[in-house]
Amino acid sequence: VPKVTQEHVDARRAEILEGARQAFAKYGYEGATVARLEEATGLSRGAIFHYFRGKKDLFSAVAVDVNRRYIGLMTTGGLAEALRALATEDPALVAVLIETQLRLRRDEDFVQRMEETMREVAPAFETWFEDQRASGAFRTDLEWPHLARFATIVTNGLALRVGTGDETDVETVVQLLDDALRPQPERGAVRKRRGARA
Amino acid sequence: VPKVTQEHVDARRAEILEGARQAFAKYGYEGATVARLEEATGLSRGAIFHYFRGKKDLFSAVAVDVNRRYIGLMTTGGLAEALRALATEDPALVAVLIETQLRLRRDEDFVQRMEETMREVAPAFETWFEDQRASGAFRTDLEWPHLARFATIVTNGLALRVGTGDETDVETVVQLLDDALRPQPERGAVRKRRGARA
Repeated sequence: VPKVTQEHVDARRAEILEGARQAFAKYGYEGATVARLEEATGLSRGAIFHYFRGKKDLFSAVAVDVNRRYIGLMTTGGLAEALRALATEDPALVAVLIETQLRLRRDEDFVQRMEETMREVAPAFETWFEDQRASGAFRTDLEWPHLARFATIVTNGLALRVGTGDETDVETVVQLLDDALRPQPERGAVRKRRGARA
Repeated sequence: VPKVTQEHVDARRAEILEGARQAFAKYGYEGATVARLEEATGLSRGAIFHYFRGKKDLFSAVAVDVNRRYIGLMTTGGLAEALRALATEDPALVAVLIETQLRLRRDEDFVQRMEETMREVAPAFETWFEDQRASGAFRTDLEWPHLARFATIVTNGLALRVGTGDETDVETVVQLLDDALRPQPERGAVRKRRGARA
């Protein structure tokens, strides 16, 4: 494939994704009809579905694109930057992403597509968490997947708040997540605390 | 109202909620038709809607009921018990609860109903978190609402995993949440770590 053509394809795809994202946020997954997708992208259905097999494919591309952007924010600016960006994200977009991912959880195609992307980005994820552990920023008593899973759970929990329109003091969330992930004090101190609770 | 009547009302309401919960989990919110609600509860539509104004009211009662149960688990067994119970919850129920709460986020009635319940349970929530701070189990450098919000974010993030059918090692989540909420080591240690990261 000549480079100029690939660039053209990428630019056109990005254009379609941008319009589709707006349409999904505004009308919801069901409400984003082909006519509305045409209007939002400024392209004909023929042009749109030349690049994407159908609406489900288009939606999963939007979801993947958003996920990639947040993983990029994390690897360049840390979890704090990713969480801050999420806190100011369009609630309608966040809501439709969560809602549709739940609705399509039994759709084999969709699930497979999302899993493929996750496998693609997993190395960057692993490298970032391992770097944080190596530099002493993150704890080493738990393997990186446990830390990554917890960070993802916090991100998703915050996303749910954003999606339902709740205001959140994101700085405290950043602080508490950081306190969970950083190297921990010795067990003795922890045990003393546990004793006090009982 | 004589006591026997109130007991009867409560028992009947609980029976309806139990059936409705199963129907919502099995068919989703839209798919839980009146006929299916009748089948699941073993009661006529007349009986069901004698106790609940309509399907939306019934759904919000189910959501409130589930929330109350988890708050009860937290106040008796701690966050660990609530998270463990959530990890083994029916994914279909969790999914429909999240999905529908997102879908109804602009429905004034529904939002008001959920907020009323949250105001009702807030004192128990506050007491529990303040007790944990007083006993030395939880940190005191942040006010209780920040700790409660973070615990809720983690719970919701885990719920999203459960709802999409992902397996989770809940014990690590419990540990990391506990490490975030417990009294923290002195600032000096934190600063040293921050320096190491830069």
